[in-house]
Amino acid sequence: MPSPESDELRAIYQSWTDRMTAAPDMDLPTMRNLFEEWHIPTAEPTGVSYEEADAGGVPALWCIPAGGAADRVLLYLHGGGFVVGSIATHRKIAGHLAKAVGVRVMVIDYRRAPEHPFPAQVEDAVTAYRWLLAQGVEPGHIATTGDSAGGNLAISLVLKVRDDGLPLPAAILPMSPWLDMEHLGKTLESNAATDALVSTAILQGMSGMFLGERGSPTDPLANPLHADLKGLPPMYIAVGGHETLQDNAERFTELARVAAVDVTLEVVPEMQHVFTFSAGRAPEADTTITAMAAWVRPRLGLT
Amino acid sequence: MPSPESDELRAIYQSWTDRMTAAPDMDLPTMRNLFEEWHIPTAEPTGVSYEEADAGGVPALWCIPAGGAADRVLLYLHGGGFVVGSIATHRKIAGHLAKAVGVRVMVIDYRRAPEHPFPAQVEDAVTAYRWLLAQGVEPGHIATTGDSAGGNLAISLVLKVRDDGLPLPAAILPMSPWLDMEHLGKTLESNAATDALVSTAILQGMSGMFLGERGSPTDPLANPLHADLKGLPPMYIAVGGHETLQDNAERFTELARVAAVDVTLEVVPEMQHVFTFSAGRAPEADTTITAMAAWVRPRLGLT
Repeated sequence: MPSPESDELRAIYQSWTDRMTAAPDMDLPTMRNLFEEWHIPTAEPTGVSYEEADAGGVPALWCIPAGGAADRVLLYLHGGGFVVGSIATHRKIAGHLAKAVGVRVMVIDYRRAPEHPFPAQVEDAVTAYRWLLAQGVEPGHIATTGDSAGGNLAISLVLKVRDDGLPLPAAILPMSPWLDMEHLGKTLESNAATDALVSTAILQGMSGMFLGERGSPTDPLANPLHADLKGLPPMYIAVGGHETLQDNAERFTELARVAAVDVTLEVVPEMQHVFTFSAGRAPEADTTITAMAAWVRPRLGLT
Repeated sequence: MPSPESDELRAIYQSWTDRMTAAPDMDLPTMRNLFEEWHIPTAEPTGVSYEEADAGGVPALWCIPAGGAADRVLLYLHGGGFVVGSIATHRKIAGHLAKAVGVRVMVIDYRRAPEHPFPAQVEDAVTAYRWLLAQGVEPGHIATTGDSAGGNLAISLVLKVRDDGLPLPAAILPMSPWLDMEHLGKTLESNAATDALVSTAILQGMSGMFLGERGSPTDPLANPLHADLKGLPPMYIAVGGHETLQDNAERFTELARVAAVDVTLEVVPEMQHVFTFSAGRAPEADTTITAMAAWVRPRLGLT
């Protein structure tokens, strides 16, 4: 059984599903406003302060934990199907990661679809990464992370960085990544009854806006399940066992292993999409964040 | 002319007005989601951390400025017509006040109308005030503040505290307070063309939900323009010159002077409703917050 606190995330997702079902013609501003509720399940992290930044033209927010290392950075790409979500929805979850890892986290407001289709999101993520390097942050002192569509970006940005011949970050930590723009996963059906938010219909709507007129669902930078993963840094992937996207994480893990990438997959039973949103409230979320932190700290050169 | 940064607040208000006009049957959850955008014009204040609290059963958030006095408190009541708005919409504006004054600010999620009509909001504000006293905070080290409907609560909570025979706080700082539940102000018409958000129609809708079946628009705790103001602590009131609610502040100031209350009124030309929402971005907002801080610090025993 999920903890009562984790079940609150499911209840919020169910309320969104109910509201979207009741208003099938919901316009985009209303849907974006609805998803801004995403911050609600996350407790306010103590001992974290914030500072806006301009990361080479990309709006960004630093989450700064008291006593953390100033020279190590997690670059956080927020979820929301490339269409919804923002710095505001993810400030608190990023703050919990900042505290747990003991480093600054930078969340960015990349351009969203459909106003800005693929590859605008990848480009903005790469811009922010390049900006960090230009600030003097060592690539080996950076890890990328993100949830859902942001988990995709945390990977695709590194693929682009590799293809561009830039130095790679030390690690990638995708949470409940959404990678498959073809909607081929078997858990889309087998977990349809347990996932309170993510349905094939929603994914089709989001991928349509993301890819726009010209993007391909098999472009490796839109769908890392089609990417050459060789040479990627170590990865820690967390996903919930009640998610329709569960096998996005599983298939990607298998492909990474075949490509000789050091990859760890954590499937947490009965958890919803991006269950780490319950950070500071639910034991499952805190346990996973603690595990992510313990895994990434030595890879960032921290003891 | 307002600064370009202050004009951004007007533009956001105009977009809300346009969206509400286009959807006259907008349901309450959608309207609440829309007003959650209220945090957007406010810059993230640096050097402030946050901590959730339970203020005697009322959900609360501490805004804690680095290096601030730990034993002085501003109790912040958020605006939103008693119906919308939350800790999340007002966290950043409260953080700016915390930094400027150099004290902790506590924002509370009082129960909202129409689910909880008057006097639930006043009761929750008083509960939070009593909780502060029970924590050992000196009443003379507390000031109440708030915007719009929260400016009303910042006053009415002190009226209730006085009537209950409790010790009074040191000061009250209402910003753009909404006090008149009878909608009698002359600026309702004379500023109708310049106020991008607050119309008589909106106020009537909000006051109907606030007062419910049994509340009276002339109850002194719902409408402090009908209250006996004798013995109230010093007050600093800020309001914008483009506001339909401008004369709520002006009439209240006059009544306070007649009751021999020490009251300062600042009318900032051409500013919108709660123009201090542009804190950290617009010079007008920062100037007013600086003036509020300079005024209240000695009244809290700070030099």
